[in-house]
Amino acid sequence: MSQNHTSWATINTEVEAHIEKALCGKQPPMVFDPMNHLIFEVPRSMAPALCIAACEAVGGRKEQAIPAASALHLMHVATYTHEYLHLSDKSMVATMPHHEFEPSIELLTADGMIPFGYELLAAMEDPANNNSESVLQVMIEIGRAMGSQGMINGQYLNVRCLGLDGEKPCDQEGMMDQMFEKKGGGLYSCGAACGAILGGGSDEEIEKLRRYGLYVGMIHGIMVHDKSGKEKRLLKLADSLRFLALKELEGMKDKNTEPICSLMDGFSAFLRVQKFHFPQKV
Amino acid sequence: MSQNHTSWATINTEVEAHIEKALCGKQPPMVFDPMNHLIFEVPRSMAPALCIAACEAVGGRKEQAIPAASALHLMHVATYTHEYLHLSDKSMVATMPHHEFEPSIELLTADGMIPFGYELLAAMEDPANNNSESVLQVMIEIGRAMGSQGMINGQYLNVRCLGLDGEKPCDQEGMMDQMFEKKGGGLYSCGAACGAILGGGSDEEIEKLRRYGLYVGMIHGIMVHDKSGKEKRLLKLADSLRFLALKELEGMKDKNTEPICSLMDGFSAFLRVQKFHFPQKV
Repeated sequence: MSQNHTSWATINTEVEAHIEKALCGKQPPMVFDPMNHLIFEVPRSMAPALCIAACEAVGGRKEQAIPAASALHLMHVATYTHEYLHLSDKSMVATMPHHEFEPSIELLTADGMIPFGYELLAAMEDPANNNSESVLQVMIEIGRAMGSQGMINGQYLNVRCLGLDGEKPCDQEGMMDQMFEKKGGGLYSCGAACGAILGGGSDEEIEKLRRYGLYVGMIHGIMVHDKSGKEKRLLKLADSLRFLALKELEGMKDKNTEPICSLMDGFSAFLRVQKFHFPQKV
Repeated sequence: MSQNHTSWATINTEVEAHIEKALCGKQPPMVFDPMNHLIFEVPRSMAPALCIAACEAVGGRKEQAIPAASALHLMHVATYTHEYLHLSDKSMVATMPHHEFEPSIELLTADGMIPFGYELLAAMEDPANNNSESVLQVMIEIGRAMGSQGMINGQYLNVRCLGLDGEKPCDQEGMMDQMFEKKGGGLYSCGAACGAILGGGSDEEIEKLRRYGLYVGMIHGIMVHDKSGKEKRLLKLADSLRFLALKELEGMKDKNTEPICSLMDGFSAFLRVQKFHFPQKV
């Protein structure tokens, strides 16, 4: 397991190196200092690593997916920053642990990250490899996952579940589950699908990995939401999702899905710590 | 002049129709109601119209530029919404005249528009026309114009000029001029360049129209900033920019630049109302 951990850490380091290189020398510092700060400060998601692992799982090379993985990280940082922005609305409970910059600066900095992410994607075009079509497909995937029917919808649901803007918190279980699906689920499934597209996966492989990402992203969302693992219903949901996720990979036995599968190790350990019984093998 | 006005209005209507069609039937209403509201409520920029006019000026068809013009409108609405967001920072003087929705909703709604804009761009791909390369080029143009070295940089400069976040207003003329360049200038020059790229313009035409857009966008920014036309320095600057803009079009005499040129009519009228003397013909 420690070997897998190193490997995920290495992937994240390579993604950060790619972003650092793209940012290198950009002016002015008053714009790029806060951007640098947020890019490397915001808690990581596993979507970029999943993107690269999915690319390799379908036989692609890591390098084909690094710009997309970097763009996914930027999108994640941008939405995270806006979600935890300190708004005038006093009932907004979700604030970042530490705000290095004023809200107006954080707001604009995150705004600058999204087009920067698309710039990285567009720069992937390589006429020698005739990859324009997959690059555009990846852009559509990311647009959908981050847009109004994806992440933004999830963030709205979050606002409603938390009962912001003077409304009562809405404690419908269905709404919360849909929030996990749209936020973490959408981001991770997009990451996996993009990796598979760029690695030249078949339609079936892309869809399998997309679903795998969806389940893993939802589990991650549940873990972040219920850090102490007190909500039995959510732990049960996470375990069913884990079962479904592994089932998707079963159908890809001829592929190297071990690294992707190892994403679950951490979750399994988490669920074990929560003393929630689940089968060791699927 | 009234004929030109109709023509610009028609273009804007077509752009809005394109966006409406793309939004049609999207769920859920709690996400798309505020999006619809903002898209049609925020003051228009001329960047989308300029994009279409530039496309036609280099011999392209209007239809080739409408999705890019629509994306430009979405980007403009998103940045405008965030710029006028009601933040907790009490010194933030720039607030929208009327806020239909709570700040957290406005924040997220604008976030959803940017990926939606890129989705519209990516959907322009048409293998029959082998246009992937220009679509990707347009995405890079828009990414740069809206990102940290473009619009975001301009908005930062605006924050500093206004003296937000507890700082003293900075009244350096150079900083203000750079703000006009990065905000309106960047948006309009991007619109014109994208139109010229999609219409199949030569590199020289693209660069000419890009500079034309830059000057026109700066003039527009000055007019919005100094509505009453009291700042003589800015009126002089606007007039020099108008001169430079028309000069760019002079070099394109074989092209139909009349519609694009008519963009200036409104500005000329504005400058005349301000009783600022400038030559009628360049």
